[in-house]
Amino acid sequence: MVSINKVAIVGGTHGNEITGYYLLQKWQDSPELIQRPSLNTSTLLANPKAYEISRRYVDQDLNRQFARHNLEDPTLGGYEQNRAKVINQAIGPKGNPKSDLVIDLHTTTSNMGPTLLMPQSGEFYNKLAAYIKMQMPSVTIFRDEDHKSNDEHHLLATVGKYGVIVEVGPVPQAVLRHDVFQQTEQMVNTILDFAHLYNENNLPDLPRETEAFRFLQSLTLPLNEKGERIGMIHQSVQDSDFKALNPGDPLFQLFNGETITYAGDKTVYTAFVNEAAYYDKNLATSLMEKVVIINE
Amino acid sequence: MVSINKVAIVGGTHGNEITGYYLLQKWQDSPELIQRPSLNTSTLLANPKAYEISRRYVDQDLNRQFARHNLEDPTLGGYEQNRAKVINQAIGPKGNPKSDLVIDLHTTTSNMGPTLLMPQSGEFYNKLAAYIKMQMPSVTIFRDEDHKSNDEHHLLATVGKYGVIVEVGPVPQAVLRHDVFQQTEQMVNTILDFAHLYNENNLPDLPRETEAFRFLQSLTLPLNEKGERIGMIHQSVQDSDFKALNPGDPLFQLFNGETITYAGDKTVYTAFVNEAAYYDKNLATSLMEKVVIINE
Repeated sequence: MVSINKVAIVGGTHGNEITGYYLLQKWQDSPELIQRPSLNTSTLLANPKAYEISRRYVDQDLNRQFARHNLEDPTLGGYEQNRAKVINQAIGPKGNPKSDLVIDLHTTTSNMGPTLLMPQSGEFYNKLAAYIKMQMPSVTIFRDEDHKSNDEHHLLATVGKYGVIVEVGPVPQAVLRHDVFQQTEQMVNTILDFAHLYNENNLPDLPRETEAFRFLQSLTLPLNEKGERIGMIHQSVQDSDFKALNPGDPLFQLFNGETITYAGDKTVYTAFVNEAAYYDKNLATSLMEKVVIINE
Repeated sequence: MVSINKVAIVGGTHGNEITGYYLLQKWQDSPELIQRPSLNTSTLLANPKAYEISRRYVDQDLNRQFARHNLEDPTLGGYEQNRAKVINQAIGPKGNPKSDLVIDLHTTTSNMGPTLLMPQSGEFYNKLAAYIKMQMPSVTIFRDEDHKSNDEHHLLATVGKYGVIVEVGPVPQAVLRHDVFQQTEQMVNTILDFAHLYNENNLPDLPRETEAFRFLQSLTLPLNEKGERIGMIHQSVQDSDFKALNPGDPLFQLFNGETITYAGDKTVYTAFVNEAAYYDKNLATSLMEKVVIINE
């Protein structure tokens, strides 16, 4: 079993998700809070310039810049394209990382509650998912698509040997909420506890099965031929993250009064419903399937 | 009795409050929706450049530029300082306005529900408050301070003979919610219905007393000597807009774990709790008093 020694906690990857910024401040004032006997934990403010201007990013979304071919391409000259290489050197590099575990802190405007996103799969992740659900039953486990290799993956958390995203909402962009702050802090503490117990081979008995949701695809808002939005997420889907969306259920409300229903052929589950940051791509919601993570 | 002939509905005064933008689009496609027999209603997108960049404003907050001495000062050269003068010419000018009624559409990240802000007082406003509470009991009536003359007042809505702000939340900045869209539309329709019935002298019997909240002061977030935030709105106050805040109630949660309580000497009520747009001034919440509007 590989042990987890170096842990990097990253905040402010998106400059207007300020919960991570304030948690980093707290941990810089009280570093003992994130230490565990078998761990060496550090913190990093990922996108200080985007935080200063209270925007998601300056030039590009930083959390899409970590595919290896981009990290190795010095011709990419945007602020976040450079920053990604600096972060990769500091806590990676991808493929041969200094960090055994990267915890990247995010928030969402969607009603997702505390969510653990796992960009990769495997025994470490399976145990972590089971442990965090045991300690914090309100957490939802969100598995990414399985087809991407770690090299191809563009998320910041993938520069470590292991990496996860702590994603908590709902909270508006550029707002700090007490409840979201607490949930984020509790999730980080639980992940650190897990890593230490994993190192010590002292994990409690974990349930064999853990419920999770796996990403299938994104749905686009209704647009006219000029690419303008002609409707919005229907109120029966708004705030219904991780709830079932059945064929024939209301999905979009058009401004002309018409209701568009979900045209899929089986029940799916929503996530990132009406997330503010995805408007630039006209994304309405992610669709997920329910899956079970098995610990043997 | 002065009759209300020309009505201007203004949206997008803040570029990231996009509900108004989409309602204007809807009404441009279906102008009959905002017509009433005795009214001539037009629409205006107030800050198109801020909408394009999905920010509250480009240079200055547009909704603070309408005091008469600013409207008459050509040396003020910011985008919104110029835009205010253009809007004043189009639907004002202040003091001798073309518009009998201005309805300015806003949203808030705070949990204020549908709120009618009345920057001025008088018989027209008193009747409107009673009528809208009768038709939409979920609406809260928000009265501004009384000490400002209309000339001094800096809000866009004050360029008309009468002016109100329709303010609905919670909705994150740059997000369109079906429920907020519907509540805003219903409030505008109710105000237009009122104006027509007022013209026709055909209002229903109005209750003598209508509950309202009047602005007292703003509270600032806890800061250290360097001006950095050291805490946040306590979760017992978060989302509690228009609820009582009593002396000794928890108010702020500091990052060091300490709780700060409300130190006032009487019960007040909150509004604009943790509003995203007020972080630049470190405003935590508005404090209000409960008042009664009397229709004689």
